Amino acid sequence: MDERNQANAIPPEEEIPPWDRLSDLIQAGDSEAIEQFVDALPLGEIARILSRLDEEDRGRFLQILPPETVAEILEQIPEVQAVDLIEQLDHDVAAAILNELPSDEQADLIGDLEDQDAEAILREMEPEESRDARALSRYEDDVAGGLMITEYLSYPESATVADVVNDLRRNAEEYQDYHVQYAYVTTTGGRLAGVLQLRELFLSADAKRISDLMIRDPRTVPDQAGLEELEDLFDRYPFFGLPVVDAHGRLVGVVQRESVDEAVAERAGSDYRKSQGIVGGEELRTMPLFLRSRRRLSWLSVNILLNVIAASVIAFYQDTLASVIALAVFLPIISDMSGCSGNQAVAVSMRELTLGVVKPAEVALVWGKEVLVGLVNGMALGALIGLVAWLWKGNVFLGLVVGGAMAVNTIVAVSIGGTIPLILKRLEMDPALASGPILTTITDMCGFFVVLSLATVLLPYLTG
Amino acid sequence: MDERNQANAIPPEEEIPPWDRLSDLIQAGDSEAIEQFVDALPLGEIARILSRLDEEDRGRFLQILPPETVAEILEQIPEVQAVDLIEQLDHDVAAAILNELPSDEQADLIGDLEDQDAEAILREMEPEESRDARALSRYEDDVAGGLMITEYLSYPESATVADVVNDLRRNAEEYQDYHVQYAYVTTTGGRLAGVLQLRELFLSADAKRISDLMIRDPRTVPDQAGLEELEDLFDRYPFFGLPVVDAHGRLVGVVQRESVDEAVAERAGSDYRKSQGIVGGEELRTMPLFLRSRRRLSWLSVNILLNVIAASVIAFYQDTLASVIALAVFLPIISDMSGCSGNQAVAVSMRELTLGVVKPAEVALVWGKEVLVGLVNGMALGALIGLVAWLWKGNVFLGLVVGGAMAVNTIVAVSIGGTIPLILKRLEMDPALASGPILTTITDMCGFFVVLSLATVLLPYLTG
Repeated sequence: MDERNQANAIPPEEEIPPWDRLSDLIQAGDSEAIEQFVDALPLGEIARILSRLDEEDRGRFLQILPPETVAEILEQIPEVQAVDLIEQLDHDVAAAILNELPSDEQADLIGDLEDQDAEAILREMEPEESRDARALSRYEDDVAGGLMITEYLSYPESATVADVVNDLRRNAEEYQDYHVQYAYVTTTGGRLAGVLQLRELFLSADAKRISDLMIRDPRTVPDQAGLEELEDLFDRYPFFGLPVVDAHGRLVGVVQRESVDEAVAERAGSDYRKSQGIVGGEELRTMPLFLRSRRRLSWLSVNILLNVIAASVIAFYQDTLASVIALAVFLPIISDMSGCSGNQAVAVSMRELTLGVVKPAEVALVWGKEVLVGLVNGMALGALIGLVAWLWKGNVFLGLVVGGAMAVNTIVAVSIGGTIPLILKRLEMDPALASGPILTTITDMCGFFVVLSLATVLLPYLTG
Repeated sequence: MDERNQANAIPPEEEIPPWDRLSDLIQAGDSEAIEQFVDALPLGEIARILSRLDEEDRGRFLQILPPETVAEILEQIPEVQAVDLIEQLDHDVAAAILNELPSDEQADLIGDLEDQDAEAILREMEPEESRDARALSRYEDDVAGGLMITEYLSYPESATVADVVNDLRRNAEEYQDYHVQYAYVTTTGGRLAGVLQLRELFLSADAKRISDLMIRDPRTVPDQAGLEELEDLFDRYPFFGLPVVDAHGRLVGVVQRESVDEAVAERAGSDYRKSQGIVGGEELRTMPLFLRSRRRLSWLSVNILLNVIAASVIAFYQDTLASVIALAVFLPIISDMSGCSGNQAVAVSMRELTLGVVKPAEVALVWGKEVLVGLVNGMALGALIGLVAWLWKGNVFLGLVVGGAMAVNTIVAVSIGGTIPLILKRLEMDPALASGPILTTITDMCGFFVVLSLATVLLPYLTG
């Protein structure tokens, strides 16, 4: 109650929205005041306020602030929004900002830019930064190489405890942002020889060689390891980060638990949005209208065609329908309810695939489990809707036709819904995007067919 | 292609499924062989294999293995499955296993047990462990107190560098699992005084007091801080962990970035499943049949009632429908397509709420952005379906009625879909579970009404 009142009442400081105040500061070109304003913002407000600025203000805002500050802001806003902002900037300004980002974020953003922009920006970046970013952006987003960072500590096998401690002291400033508990020990050829826990440095004599302290043959991941493999590894072992090696065993980066967790969260959300027809899994209302319309339409227009195909079953039975017009009331109900039942099974299968408790090949097992739920729920829903039909028209046969069709089609729906994500996965298609439309087309056709063909057979009893 | 062949071919070692081999080992009661078997399993297989054992084997499996090993297994499998397993165990065995888990996982599992079981198990646990678990399980899962761990380093203000280093050396074994880069410094009253970066210990004289090295007034989170606040904090600052304080400023735990990321991933997946009618957001096919049926039915039965209400609009226009039976073909299409368009808008709003780029009160802003997409897509979809209707029956008015209704209803659908998650959020209801059914009921009613009332007005032209 309190909360609602609060939300309705417009508090005094809201009279000038923060984006208008920021816009005024931008017009005045006062970079110090802008930085102070951004620092003082309530948590999580930056993305919202940036999305309310007009394009011109946004461009000036990013050019006025020092690149380090802009880089910090880009780290805090959604990636799509960050890509949008970078594309509006001159290439040299964009390059200066990207120089300040950690390597995995550089690679993510560059990978999402238009190729031409990406190339131009890479050319303007610092040589070392652009080399790393180029190497990382060659990886898919969801493999170890795409998730890893290149900011890590590594020392040659020949180094001593004193060498490492001195290096840590000298570069304390730079290493501040590394958040590491391990250093990696490499051979002269760049191959990973071992991992050194930094705590070991407390306990050892200065002259000791780190190769005597390191853990040999540490667990590594190949740069092409997929998100599921990484998820499994981090679930199974308590590591904070794992060294990533290329095909030649050379250390190329470190993948952190938090990057994997973030990618998993991103995928879960993206699956949900794809299942609702958001192509690519991402849309913000700050995107241009026609881009948003086009991407949504690309899924909707496939769907409407599938709908027309399914509904053609109804057209085939027009005569039956004309005789028992009450059936028209139940067709959308059977269509919608079958879709719901089937989508529940889709969601459970998607979950079980993600958790690894089923494998894509185990179609029969899943079907066996799902068909029982379909039987129970189909009978319950069929009885309910059959009763409604019977009571409404006083015709028990209408109840039997509608209820029977609902029961049968619920079983069909959960059977298809439970197994189709597994089948799509085996065909290397995206189950999140395709399961829904395929499911509802088949269940609609089947549902319309069962109710109308049953009605055709029992026509004398329905019109009697 | 390769992958598919591989999936179809049954590799020889699959001839005896691993759960059967494990079952044999369990029958033989050979705990060492079982441990070896589990250690040698391919990653991510444990959850799957456990789900295939029958209940008796599973019970024996958990009782044969040492509690530490079972605890490790429980950490690697989905939480619902872990809770299931614990409920099958004797309370003293369960307690011995829970003793070995980190405090946040103890609390999560205990919070999900039946109250009676939880109490009995807590009584059997080690006093210190059970006290921590009890305290933590009092918090909601998604607040800082529910996500925090109680395994952290803390030292009194009066300690010196030497005191801390000695403690670290003495307890290296125990601290192995802590993964901390910070120690927390507390006053005698238990209040948080500061945070000590462990790297400072390298750089300082042994006699120095840690209160001179610590960062004063560190950022803390209240134990009741919600997941969104935590997400914001970790997005904004590069911390690995944040100290959690109670209402009196006393240090009660540490919330780690990875716990927050995991909770966010869990919520995203759970929202997806709720939107498909999986009540509670979690179902595995190892759960009992009637539990699964009942939970799915509880959502489906609300949905079928809403469907009946919506379809009653059709019943009201039976005479029009009897005159123009072709309309019956288009009713399910309009219903399904409006649901799709509206659900896209729901998904985008859910995302924008999560990212914080819109606030629940900004209904008008979202509506303004969404109605434009509805206008564009409504005209495209309306033109498409209108053309189909016109060409099919050769009656341009049928095309106008069907296409016009589709266009209007698409605008209605995206308007409702875009705004309803915001409204539900303000009413403190769960937008993931409730948005879909509310949306489709209103759009169905509206769609049926528009197409049938329009047809009633234009009846002479449709039957002509």
